[in-house]
Amino acid sequence: MGKAWAQEATAFSAAEKYGIRLDRGDIDRAERRLAGRIWRTPVVRSEHLDALAGARLWLKAENLQRGGSFKVRGALLAVEQLATAGSRGVIAQSTGNHAIAVSLAAREYRLPATLVLPSDAAPVKIRRIRETGAEVVLAGTVLADRVAMVEKLRDVHGYDVVDPYENPHVVAGQGTATAELLGETAAKGVPLDAVVVPIGGGSAIAGACLAARGYEVAVVGAEPAAVPAFTAALRERQPVTVAAGHTIADGLRPERIGALPFGLARGSVAEVVTVREPAIAEALRAAFLDARLVIEPAAATALAAALSHAAGFGTDVGVLLSGGNVEPGLVASLLTGHADESRRVP
Amino acid sequence: MGKAWAQEATAFSAAEKYGIRLDRGDIDRAERRLAGRIWRTPVVRSEHLDALAGARLWLKAENLQRGGSFKVRGALLAVEQLATAGSRGVIAQSTGNHAIAVSLAAREYRLPATLVLPSDAAPVKIRRIRETGAEVVLAGTVLADRVAMVEKLRDVHGYDVVDPYENPHVVAGQGTATAELLGETAAKGVPLDAVVVPIGGGSAIAGACLAARGYEVAVVGAEPAAVPAFTAALRERQPVTVAAGHTIADGLRPERIGALPFGLARGSVAEVVTVREPAIAEALRAAFLDARLVIEPAAATALAAALSHAAGFGTDVGVLLSGGNVEPGLVASLLTGHADESRRVP
Repeated sequence: MGKAWAQEATAFSAAEKYGIRLDRGDIDRAERRLAGRIWRTPVVRSEHLDALAGARLWLKAENLQRGGSFKVRGALLAVEQLATAGSRGVIAQSTGNHAIAVSLAAREYRLPATLVLPSDAAPVKIRRIRETGAEVVLAGTVLADRVAMVEKLRDVHGYDVVDPYENPHVVAGQGTATAELLGETAAKGVPLDAVVVPIGGGSAIAGACLAARGYEVAVVGAEPAAVPAFTAALRERQPVTVAAGHTIADGLRPERIGALPFGLARGSVAEVVTVREPAIAEALRAAFLDARLVIEPAAATALAAALSHAAGFGTDVGVLLSGGNVEPGLVASLLTGHADESRRVP
Repeated sequence: MGKAWAQEATAFSAAEKYGIRLDRGDIDRAERRLAGRIWRTPVVRSEHLDALAGARLWLKAENLQRGGSFKVRGALLAVEQLATAGSRGVIAQSTGNHAIAVSLAAREYRLPATLVLPSDAAPVKIRRIRETGAEVVLAGTVLADRVAMVEKLRDVHGYDVVDPYENPHVVAGQGTATAELLGETAAKGVPLDAVVVPIGGGSAIAGACLAARGYEVAVVGAEPAAVPAFTAALRERQPVTVAAGHTIADGLRPERIGALPFGLARGSVAEVVTVREPAIAEALRAAFLDARLVIEPAAATALAAALSHAAGFGTDVGVLLSGGNVEPGLVASLLTGHADESRRVP
C-alpha cells in the first residue's frame, strides 16, 4: 500500500507541478486548443480485417497525423505552454515519435530543440527530426541512458524538458486521439465496446483512460511480450524497470511506465494484452494489404491485440493506430518474407 | 468532323440504351443511392507532399474504399440496376479493379459473376475477386482479347455485361468520388484550383468532368507515357487503339478510351499529363513514406502528375488516389531499390 500511495503522490505532484488537474474536461480543453492545428485523422474500416477479427474494427488512423503519429497532439500543447512562459528552447528524450512531435512543435514556436534518441532508433525517425532543423543526440539503448543525457544537456543549453510521460499537457493531448475516435463513432450511433491502445511509456493509455470517462467502453492496452512494462507495473503496483527483450516495435521499447500515466491508467484499464513478435509483424502486413495503411510496429501491436481478442471484447472495437513512421526496409522484408498468399484468411 | 460526330452519337446512344442522361444531377443521385453502402473515404493531407509539389494537395484516399478502389461506386449502381431488372448473373472485363468491384456488388445482390482479366493481371487483384466467390477467366493481354471473351461467355452463361466504360451508371458512380472531394474541400472553404485524375478506360475522368460542373476547377487527366490513349484520342478526335508499352500502372493499361467517357470528357478536360515510369514509381514511394498510404501505380500516376505540375495549376489541388490494390512484391522492390534516403527533398 505504501508503494501504491507513493505512486499516487508522484502523479499528483506531477500534475501540481504543471498546474493542471487531469480529468475528462482536460481532454475537451485539449481538443479545443488543438483545433485547426492538427489533422482530423479518419476512422478507417476494412471488411477484411473485420473478418480476421470477428468484430467490427474502427481504426483511428493517426499514422496519417502530422509528423506521422498522434504524439504531435501532446507536444503542441506542452511546447505552447513553455513558449508562452518564455522558454529559450526545448529538450526531450524519446524512442522517436515524441521527439519528432516536439521538433515540429518547436519549429512552430521558433524554439531551438534537442532530441535524445537511442542509438538503435529507427533511421526514418532521426531523419524526420533533422528535417525540422532540430538537433539529434543518440544516447545508449535504454531509457536511463536517455534520461541521464537529457539531465546533462538541459543545464548546458538552458532548455526546458518536454517529458513524454510525466507532463500532463502531453497526456491530455495524447488523449484527444481516443476522444476523437469515441466521439466520431458515437455520433454514427456505434458505441464502441472497447478501444485498444499501444503501451510504450504510457501516455497513450493514460490519455485513453481519461478520454473514456463517461463512455461505456473498455480500455485495453497492448504491449510487446518482449517489453511487458505495464504488465509488470500492474503486478508490482508501481512502475518497475523490466529487462527488455528485442522487439520490432521500437516505439514501445521504454522498459518502464511513467508514474503519471500509471497512476491515471492502472485503475481504469480493463485488460492488457501482451503481443508476440510474429503477431506484430503479421498485423503490420495485414494493415498494408487489407487496410492499405502504412503503420509502424507500435501501431501494429495494438492491431494485433485487436485481431486476436476483439471478438471477446464485443461487436465494435476501436484501435488506436498510433503512428506510421516505419523503416521502408522492414516493411519490404515483411512483405517479401511471406510469399505464400494462399494461407491468408479471405 | 464526321468522326467526332460519330463519337457523340455513340455516347448519346449509350446513354439512351441505359435510360440515363448524364449530367451533374446524375452525380448527386448516384451519391444518394450509394449513401451508407460505401465508405466515406478521407481527404488526406501531407506537409511533405505539399513541399514536394509546391502546392497544397488534397488526397482523396479511395485506396481505403471497399474493395480497395473507387470502382465499387459505379459497380454497385450498375449491378443494382441489373439485379432489379431480374438479371441471372453478370460478366465484366477489366484490368482488375472494376472486376473486383463487380464481384463485390454481385455478391451483395446474390448474383453469380464472371470476370475477365488479362493474363498479366496483378495477382492480388485476381485473389480479391476469387475471395468473393466469383469466377475469374484470363484472356490475352489486350483489351480486344478481353472484350471478345466477354462476348463469347455472355451468351454461354446468359449473363449481363457490366461494361467498365460505356455504362452510364458506372460513369456516374465513379464521378461521386470526385464529387465528395470537391464538396468536402468547398465545405472547408478551400475551393480547389484543379483535380488530377488517372486515366485508364476513361470512367474516372468522365465522372470527374461531370462532378466538376458548377465548380471553378480544372480537371486534369494523368496517364502513363507508355499508354497515352487519351492523348491520342484528343489528337485524333476519337478513341483510337494505341500501341501499349509496358507500365507498372496495370490499372491504366487499357489501350483505348471508351466512347462514352471520351464524349463526356474531351470538351471539359483542361489538360492531360503523361507520366513516365520512374515518376510513377517515385510517387508510389512518396505516398508510402510521406502520406503513409498504400496506393497502386494507377493512383501514383495521378499523384506523380500533381507532384510535378500542381504549382502550375494553383494553390490547392485535389488528387484522386484511385486505388490501393498493389502487389506487395512491387512495393518491396520500390522501397528497397531506393536505399539512398538522403537525396529526398525534406
